Order: sequence, then structure tokens, then C-alpha cells
Amino acid sequence: MRELVVAGFDPGTARLGFGVIQGDENPVPIDYGVIETAAHEPMPDRLKQLYEGVTAILRDYRPAVCAIEQLFFSRNVTTALSVGQARGIVMLAAAQAAVPVVEYTPAEVKQSVSGYGKADKNQMQEMVRIILGLHEAPWPDDAADALAVALCHVQLARFRDAIGE
Amino acid sequence: MRELVVAGFDPGTARLGFGVIQGDENPVPIDYGVIETAAHEPMPDRLKQLYEGVTAILRDYRPAVCAIEQLFFSRNVTTALSVGQARGIVMLAAAQAAVPVVEYTPAEVKQSVSGYGKADKNQMQEMVRIILGLHEAPWPDDAADALAVALCHVQLARFRDAIGE
Repeated sequence: MRELVVAGFDPGTARLGFGVIQGDENPVPIDYGVIETAAHEPMPDRLKQLYEGVTAILRDYRPAVCAIEQLFFSRNVTTALSVGQARGIVMLAAAQAAVPVVEYTPAEVKQSVSGYGKADKNQMQEMVRIILGLHEAPWPDDAADALAVALCHVQLARFRDAIGE
Repeated sequence: MRELVVAGFDPGTARLGFGVIQGDENPVPIDYGVIETAAHEPMPDRLKQLYEGVTAILRDYRPAVCAIEQLFFSRNVTTALSVGQARGIVMLAAAQAAVPVVEYTPAEVKQSVSGYGKADKNQMQEMVRIILGLHEAPWPDDAADALAVALCHVQLARFRDAIGE
């Protein structure tokens, strides 16, 4: 049986981070990075590029689950609208690929990956690096965040299995 | 030559309003209504339904332009995120259908349709009814708003033609 594959996404319209990992016990990174779009292009074209990128990732790696961060955040309504557009694209691509989407709060991601719900960005990147056995911290931030939410799913799935849920 | 067809959209995840109109001088309504999704279904599935609905509208009516309202609004970041998701879907569907998306501010829509930039919802619905020669005001609100932004595009396109831009 193929080991669990989880794809994490950190949606944004300028940079959409992705991280694909495999394995329950000692997850390893399969692929990670960012899909970037150019600010000077029309938003519909940028969203189309993101859609094609995410669709390709789901097709290539066939994850069992897509994990994304649940967002409340942001004083900034413009940012929320923009992030919402990118999130919508990820969710659509997942629904079309029949891959369930699971959302985790930022605190759940931090807690499950670092053991500390208020870990900062550097601490999180370092924990992601250690857990995945990477020589260097995953870069850029968006890719590290995507790996972190994928790891969160793996950790919490193990926990749910362990307690028989 | 086929007269100008414009599709207006009022994106939301629970209700996505659409309004398709045709004609430069005396635009007539071709179709309008809402695509509704059920709150109890997973968001990715709801976005997929919206995507399929919008894609069908663009395929059936082949508009020259999609018009949507440009949004700043909303104290409520959760609403912005949700609306952003639906907007992303409309923009993606338009890009895939190679239909340009044009955005207008709420004030532009009000000004061009009613002649008054601060018209209220009832006044706007009544103006949309009169301009499109409908017996009753278009219903629900989301459909009326979608027709209004489509009308805004037609009016401003006429204006731009008139002044030679």
C-alpha cells in the first residue's frame, strides 16, 4: 500500500506555497515550492496560472488530502479578499480532483509541528527542516508554511488513529 | 453582427448572482438569477458548483465581457475571505473562457445606472427594472446587483465610444 501522501497549500495570489509529503511515521518531502504570478498581469490570468499549477500538483502526486490553513486574521480586508481568491482556486482544484480539503488553524499547525502554539516563523521553519530531514530550512516562507500545514495533518491523523477516532 | 453581450456577476459563496444583457442602446435582459449552494456542504464542493454554473453561463451566452463589482468594503474579514473565494472562481472561469473581466466600483455602478452615486438598493433595483423594461424588479438582490454591474459596463462603454476612447 502506498504511504499517505498529503499536499499542503499556503494560498496567495502573488505566491502560492505548496508542500507535498509522504509517510505517517517519518514523513519525507516529495516536492515543495511556490507558484508565482506577476503583479502586472490581469488577476483572472493569474488565477488561471494558479489553478493550472495546483491542478498539476494534484495530478502528479495524487495526495489523499489537501491541507490548508484556516484564516481569520488580517486587519486588512484587501488582503483577505485576495487570499480568498487564491483559496477558492485551491479548493476548486481539490474538489475537481476529488481530494478532500482539511483546514487547520494557525495555532493547530504551530502546536502540532513545534509543540508550541505560539512558535514564531523561524522556529517553525527550523522544526519543519528537522522533521523532514532537510539540510536547509525550506524556502521561501510560503513553501515552508505549506509543508507545515501538511505536517500538521499527518501528526493529527496519527493522533486520531492512535486514540481510535 | 451580434449585439454586445455582457455578463454581470455578484459573487458570493451562498448565492452568486448573474445577469446577462444584450445591446448597446437599449440593452435587454437575456438571463438572470442566482446560483445557490447549501451551507452544510463542504466549501470545495460549493465552489465547484459555482464554477460549473458560471462556466455554463459563459458557454451558453458567450459574453464579450464579464463585469463585476470591485470591492473594498466590509468591516468583516470573514466575509471578504468568503467573497474572495467566489470572486476567484468567477475570474478563473472567465480567464478559461478567454472573456475579459472588467471591475467597477460600487459608486461607478450606482452613478452610471441611476445617475446618482449614492442610490440605495431599492432605487437601484427600480432603475434596473426600468432600463431593462421588466414588469417587476429583478429578484433576488444578487441578480439585480449582477444586472446593474452589467448595465454599468454597457453605459460606460457607450460613453467611452462617444468620446472616442
